[in-house]
Parts: sequence; C-alpha cells; structure tokens
Amino acid sequence: MSLTNRQILLASRPQGEPSADNFRLVETPLPAPDALAEGQVLVRHHWLSLDPYMRGRMSEGKSYAAPQPLDEVMIGGTAGEVLASRNPAFRAGDKVVGYGGWQQYQLLDAGQAAALQKVDTSRVPLSAYLGPVGMPGVTAWYGLNGIIEPRAGKTVVVSAASGAVGSVVGQLAKVRGCRAVGIAGGAEKCRYVTEELGFDACIDYREHRDAASLARALKDACPDGIDGHFENVGGMVLDAVMLRMNAFGRIAMCGMIAGYNGEPIPMAYPQLILTNRLRVEGFIVSEQPAAWPPALKELGTLVAEGRLKYRETVAEGLESAPAAFLGLLKGRNFGKQLVKLA
Amino acid sequence: MSLTNRQILLASRPQGEPSADNFRLVETPLPAPDALAEGQVLVRHHWLSLDPYMRGRMSEGKSYAAPQPLDEVMIGGTAGEVLASRNPAFRAGDKVVGYGGWQQYQLLDAGQAAALQKVDTSRVPLSAYLGPVGMPGVTAWYGLNGIIEPRAGKTVVVSAASGAVGSVVGQLAKVRGCRAVGIAGGAEKCRYVTEELGFDACIDYREHRDAASLARALKDACPDGIDGHFENVGGMVLDAVMLRMNAFGRIAMCGMIAGYNGEPIPMAYPQLILTNRLRVEGFIVSEQPAAWPPALKELGTLVAEGRLKYRETVAEGLESAPAAFLGLLKGRNFGKQLVKLA
Repeated sequence: MSLTNRQILLASRPQGEPSADNFRLVETPLPAPDALAEGQVLVRHHWLSLDPYMRGRMSEGKSYAAPQPLDEVMIGGTAGEVLASRNPAFRAGDKVVGYGGWQQYQLLDAGQAAALQKVDTSRVPLSAYLGPVGMPGVTAWYGLNGIIEPRAGKTVVVSAASGAVGSVVGQLAKVRGCRAVGIAGGAEKCRYVTEELGFDACIDYREHRDAASLARALKDACPDGIDGHFENVGGMVLDAVMLRMNAFGRIAMCGMIAGYNGEPIPMAYPQLILTNRLRVEGFIVSEQPAAWPPALKELGTLVAEGRLKYRETVAEGLESAPAAFLGLLKGRNFGKQLVKLA
Repeated sequence: MSLTNRQILLASRPQGEPSADNFRLVETPLPAPDALAEGQVLVRHHWLSLDPYMRGRMSEGKSYAAPQPLDEVMIGGTAGEVLASRNPAFRAGDKVVGYGGWQQYQLLDAGQAAALQKVDTSRVPLSAYLGPVGMPGVTAWYGLNGIIEPRAGKTVVVSAASGAVGSVVGQLAKVRGCRAVGIAGGAEKCRYVTEELGFDACIDYREHRDAASLARALKDACPDGIDGHFENVGGMVLDAVMLRMNAFGRIAMCGMIAGYNGEPIPMAYPQLILTNRLRVEGFIVSEQPAAWPPALKELGTLVAEGRLKYRETVAEGLESAPAAFLGLLKGRNFGKQLVKLA
C-alpha cells in the first residue's frame, strides 16, 4: 500500500506580517513502507513544533541561518514513530525526534538518518521532547546557565514567561534558588506563571503603555533589582527591564519577537549597559553543542519527576499549522505551540 | 612661608550642556611646607588630567559613582612632586600620581597618603602617567584584552580614535596583530591616527550624516567585517559599527559621550546582538584591579621604547581647566587633555 504525504511549503516571503497566503499545502506520494531502499527510514510524525525562529527563516534578510527556500517543506522540529526502517540504527516502533518539517511523514536516506534521535517515552511524553526536554528547554537552560549564570538569592526576570522557553527559564531559576519574575501578556498567563509554574511574581505587560510604567511594576516585583534577564520580546519590555538592572547584571538575548516583522525596536537606554556594567549577549542554542547533554539530562529528570511543568497548545492536523503559527507570533498560544499530526 | 592653594569647585550642576558657570575658583591657605603634621604629605601638582567621566560626576543621576559634591574640589587625576613630607613613605622630590583634583596643591593626611603612587620618570614622562601609562591606558588595555579579546588577523574598531583611550586601543590592537580601524572627528585627527599612530584606516564620522552612510565607509575600511569594537561615543557611531559586526563579535562599552548631556541615544538595531550573537559589555576600569599591574607594565614598556605614541593638548594654568574641559566634551582637544599647573 503506497502512502500519500501532505506537506506545507513556503509559497512566498512575507512583506511585514506573514499571512496564510505565504504557505501552500501539497500532496506527494511516498513509497510503501515495505518498499524502502537500503538505509532508509520512514517516520510518521505525531507532533510538529511551531517556534518563533521560523519567522526569521521566512525572510531573506541577513540572519544567523540561511533563509527557508521557497517551494520547499517548511522547516520545523518533529516527534514521531518509525513506521518502517531498512537502517540498522532504527526499527519500526522507535520513538524519534528530528527536524522533519511541516509534513505528515519524513523519508530519510541513509545519510540523513543520523539527524534522528531515538527518545525514551517511558517517563517523558513524546511531545515534551519538542518542548521542555527539547530545543526550547535547552535554549532556556543555556541562556540561564551559560550567560546569566544565576546565583542563589539573585533575581531573574524572563519575558514571554508562559511560553515554551520562558516557562523553563523561570522554573530553572527557582531550582537554582533565585527569585523568578515573569513578564507575560494577559492576566490568565500571569496567573498560570505564578500559581502553576511557581514564579514569585508575574507582570502583565499589556497593563503598561510605556517602559516607565512597566519599570515601576518591575520595581515592586523585584525589590532588590534585577540581576539576570532572559529576553524573548525586545522593545518596551527590554527597555523597562534595563531600567531596573543591577550593576554587573547579565541579559541573555534569545529572541526579539517584537521586531520579527521588521518593525524598528530601538533600545532606548544603551548607556545603562555602561553605567551598570551590564553584559548583553545573544545566542543561538544550536551553536552550543556542549550544553545539550547536561541540559537534556537535567530537564528530562525534572519533567519525569513532575518538578518542571509545562503547558501545550495543540492545533489539530497539518492544515491548521499556518494559522497556529500566525497565532503564535501574536502570542495567542499558551505554552508550547504544537500541531498534532497523528 | 605659607602657601595659598587655588582650587576649582563644582558650583552648580549643569542642566544639559555644562558651562563655565558650573565651576568656581577659590583660594585657600595651606600650611607652610615646614609646618606639616606627623604623617602628612604636601604635593605640588604639575599636571591635571581632564577626562570625559567627569561630566557624569557633575550630574546627580544614578550612575556607577557617587556624584561630585557641590562646593567641593572637582575630582581629577593629578601628577606632581612631593614638596614636603612627614610621612616615611614619601620624601621631597618624589614624583607622584593620584586623584588630587582640580587644584594646585594637595595636602594629604597620614590615612590618605596611600592613594599616592610614586612613579619613575627616568624613561616615561610624568604626564604620561595620566595618559597612556595611567587610567586612560589601562582603560584601553582592559577593554581590549578583558572584553574584546582580539586574536591576530581580526579587525578591531575604536571610536574617538585619536583620544587618550582610543589611541591606545588601536595601537595595542596592532601589537596583537589585528587590523585596527579608527573613527574620529575631522580629517586632521584621522591623518594622525593612520600616519602617526599606525592604524590601518580611520573614518571621519563628520563626513557621514547617518549610520547607513558610516556603515558603508566601515565596509570599505573593514573588508572582513568587524570582530571587536571599543565604544567611546555611542549613538550613530555605535549603530553603524553594529551593522558591520561579525558573528560572535564583542563590543566593549567604555563611554557614550554622545549622551553625556542627557540627549537620548537609542541603539537602533539591538536585534543585531541576537542575530550576530554579539556580546556587549560595559566596564569601569577602577573596578578591574587585577588588570592594572600587567597593563601598566606593558604600557610603560611600550611608551619607554617609543612603540606607543600619544599626543597631549595642554591648557596652561588652573583657571583654564573649565574651558578646556568644556572643549574636551566637544572633541576640541587632540589626544590627551591636560592642564599644566606648574
């Protein structure tokens, strides 16, 4: 029995805000599971991860990664199950994660199969390998431990605090003995951040119309100032945090979603970097291979023990991916945005 | 014979740009050199150093150092000669540097004398201990070696390149085997930076009216991009440099003279910190005590051997200090701004 694969391609590059028109759904034939070539692995995707970095890849501008080519399957992290294998490293039924992209199946040749990672789903759910025990979790872990380097008793702030990365940053900071303060959009997300994730405080940035107002709220939430900040948003949020940073504070620049569509997002007070002797550092987690093994070990243990909580927003079916992605860029998701493919 | 000391006090805090009215000259009596108390040292200042950091101290706003108190002698680095001493650590004729402030003499009690440093003027001129072999030189040394960490063959850019700090940054970068590119104000300064100091190139920022134009000039001057930047200015200069930074580049934030009078100096493209994985770090050289001994050793050797060049602009007499300082803030000096007091 031959299979039909459904795939979503990048049809065009957005000018400013992306729209559903930038994507195109196509169907392509796959070989039958019993007709693989030597070395091939056929994976059925259960989960597709949607992440803010994909917005950058849709544009052609200079960035840290090559742009997503037009008319090719959108890149993306995936978790699934090996359907058939003629590769000695895999067998049918193996649970795997990889970068399979926005499609229902992935057929890997012998040379590509090394990009697949087998995972143990006995204590950690498969989807968590796309969230707290995957790229978002390692991003949080590296930014916190590799750049912010928090010590017990210090105050760590994170923006997009209820998101896949931010939620891990704050919970790890609590594990390290820090005061963890989130910034999120909306009362419901803030409640979740404090009541379910255990942050010490969370500020709804939507209640503040400028950086000065948000900075006043941060002063209340961070009575001893801010020692470390994990930035996912940029713009007004970053300005407000910088106004409350302590001397020798560290800022890990992970994302600036406020400027993903090309809006100017100037930093209002760069002189604070000097007067407060701050270190502001950008990073890309894929360039930090040494961080992954210790990060995944700690994150996997914390999730298995129920000490690292996470929330998922699940869109059903591949065809829902574009709308879910556009919603992610507007903060409409709550926690990790996934697409359920099987 | 008793002495009269002439001193310049901070009379008022500037609103915006400082003016001569913010200073006041006073005369105060000093004990005769043969009438010192036990432990006292009387120093006659030969040189007063004028430095941009003094502008920050004139204001009351939050900064890394306490503001200069009103109606007290303006702080400042000084170099001079011991006139009389009843302290076993010093004797008349010793050449010393310290933070004696804007005055002709300094009388130090036993507990204050540790702030004086004896210096050897056999191979290094006394005034150089306020420049390349003093605080400005160590500032350059630490920003370059402690933050930028340049490797041979990499490109280092420095703004205010003909100044007391910038001139050392570029020459040290050359010693390290780097390509050194300066940014300075005016053709004469740029000629000096390349022809006398040996930088590979120097750009006159006054020929560029926006960051895009300056960035194009930087592209020509830095064909392999910019790996390290030492920032003394901020504003448009910093924006232009950031547009040409290579991945994993480092920016040492030493000064932002463009905003010293309270002008907004937003950083236009903070997202480049992320996309280029930059590290941007502010520092204050007085907080880096470990850097001073190795820095002064190397800088003293380079000056003594004629391998580290410097230029001084000398104002004559204490009463000329306010005008010279105001000129420094406008870039009217050329090299290290000093006031000759004796």
